Amino acid sequence: MRFGFDRLAAFCRDALVALGALPEHAEVTARRLLEADLRGRTGHGIIRLPQYAGRIEAGGIELRPDIDLLRETPVSGLVDGGNGLGQVVMTVATETAMTKAIESGMAWVGTVHSNHAGAAGVYTGMAAERGLIAMYTAVASANVMPPWGGRERLLGTNPISIAIPTDSHPFLLDIATTVTSHGTIKVLAQAGQQMPEGWVVDLEGRPILDPTRADEGFLMPIGGYKGSGLNLGLGLLAGVLNGAAFGDDVIDHRQVPGQAANTGQAIFVMRPDLFRDFDEFRSDMERHLAALRASGGDDPVHLPGDMAAAEMSSRLRDGIPLGDVLLDQLRALGARLDVEDGLD
Amino acid sequence: MRFGFDRLAAFCRDALVALGALPEHAEVTARRLLEADLRGRTGHGIIRLPQYAGRIEAGGIELRPDIDLLRETPVSGLVDGGNGLGQVVMTVATETAMTKAIESGMAWVGTVHSNHAGAAGVYTGMAAERGLIAMYTAVASANVMPPWGGRERLLGTNPISIAIPTDSHPFLLDIATTVTSHGTIKVLAQAGQQMPEGWVVDLEGRPILDPTRADEGFLMPIGGYKGSGLNLGLGLLAGVLNGAAFGDDVIDHRQVPGQAANTGQAIFVMRPDLFRDFDEFRSDMERHLAALRASGGDDPVHLPGDMAAAEMSSRLRDGIPLGDVLLDQLRALGARLDVEDGLD
Repeated sequence: MRFGFDRLAAFCRDALVALGALPEHAEVTARRLLEADLRGRTGHGIIRLPQYAGRIEAGGIELRPDIDLLRETPVSGLVDGGNGLGQVVMTVATETAMTKAIESGMAWVGTVHSNHAGAAGVYTGMAAERGLIAMYTAVASANVMPPWGGRERLLGTNPISIAIPTDSHPFLLDIATTVTSHGTIKVLAQAGQQMPEGWVVDLEGRPILDPTRADEGFLMPIGGYKGSGLNLGLGLLAGVLNGAAFGDDVIDHRQVPGQAANTGQAIFVMRPDLFRDFDEFRSDMERHLAALRASGGDDPVHLPGDMAAAEMSSRLRDGIPLGDVLLDQLRALGARLDVEDGLD
Repeated sequence: MRFGFDRLAAFCRDALVALGALPEHAEVTARRLLEADLRGRTGHGIIRLPQYAGRIEAGGIELRPDIDLLRETPVSGLVDGGNGLGQVVMTVATETAMTKAIESGMAWVGTVHSNHAGAAGVYTGMAAERGLIAMYTAVASANVMPPWGGRERLLGTNPISIAIPTDSHPFLLDIATTVTSHGTIKVLAQAGQQMPEGWVVDLEGRPILDPTRADEGFLMPIGGYKGSGLNLGLGLLAGVLNGAAFGDDVIDHRQVPGQAANTGQAIFVMRPDLFRDFDEFRSDMERHLAALRASGGDDPVHLPGDMAAAEMSSRLRDGIPLGDVLLDQLRALGARLDVEDGLD
């Protein structure tokens, strides 16, 4: 079944308000979740609402957070999220970074005491829509693999997103530095499908194919030791640099829903006109991206952001599809919380 | 055979001066090349000198370049390298970025009309030694693969380096976003060894194992579409953003040695004390890195920068080993250019 963006966002917002969130925090969180669904990033969309509800009900998220700018300069900020909803904290961080970047040329804003904030590309996309370059990374909300050569889970799926404005939709990379992520595994599990080899291995290096057994194994980094090193470097910048959780200090936010996660994120925003005239830059971007798209001969080549832009226009037109398992979960949540439009 | 750093650096410097380079440019280039060798990044060390000599003699590199800061703000710069030696241009860019970052908190400096600058980690390492965080990327000096799903070589091995200071040697990631790089292939070719599967494929996707035939195929990105997207995003930031060559505009600097390459690079430098007290940050880095190193049980876990630091101390003590093929090339070059210490 398909539902409009506004209807699903209203459902999310109303559910979060019923759980005790401030109306403006509920609204922001709902929008960030559905913006992920709009882009086809379903693993970080409304599928997360039941999990967030579980953490809120277990006392793991502060619904009246003090969100403070602990440190700042004209080009930097450290946002203490006060253990508030991650989408709210990252929206504050992104807006702070954009404002500073417009004023000063660039800005790097980190977060501490934040929570899972959903799809990386939602935040870098906000900057690209305003003609700004953005990069985002985070310490993911659970450890899923050892460093290359190690045997203890000390690293997460730490994502990287890069967004660059063009004349049309932005170039928008949004990837986990693991071959897959828990969001994607969750989507497969709900669809009753198997995982391909190379996603998850057990302690002896044997592949695990059943997505419901993924937690028994390790996720694999992209590119072996290279992706492992990149994942680690990004985690240090999003976690240790901000005084947020990293390594042993990271809790699995699904396993211990009542515990504060102290998630760390970082967003960097930069004006392209520091280096070239903006119009010249955008048209040169278009020229190069067009050549790349045409490089498959008769096969279409999709660049980062292309599928998301196509999904966005079709989902804005036709609605956002929800699978049966998720829809049942959302309806049960809506009934329990007495949300008026229960998606029936 | 092993040679001391100073002796090899003097050989490089003298050869470059004999080729017509300014003494200070020859000195800087020699040091950057040998610093790569010291770290064990042999593919970007003195092995490149014969190739640079070829480009200089063919007129492809300007030996009296005007190196200009075309644009600048307190946090940014665009360095026009005037088609000078890449190590010289990138050293100017790195020093500019460090000076601005110390003053303003952070800085992003791009290059245009630059040339191949060797090992990424040499530049980020300069910043980390001064207690600064650094990231570097570049458009590599030849196209080696299509974008994911494409059939035309439009992307290079575009590297990424991240350096973060600690209490001891820095965390220092320095990777190509392809499974391998031409520097590594060149080392294997000189050693007469085969490439493993997964490095290079031909137009039909079949593996090529002979390193001397690598140019017939495509290099593979790390992590499939993910690494391809990352490679592309980095290339846009190092190339298109600076008005440097990208995509179709990139020449293979080995194939057309007489042509200016218009290489683009970018380095970002940031003070860690924007976010945390520096001592607290460094000791927290050490704590986490120690836990990661210990996570292999009886197996040692090497983190990015660990092997380079170990290589550096052993090579400073025992000298830098040169293989026979390379040594013959260098001796022939030295004899031809009448360099006094011909490494005999």
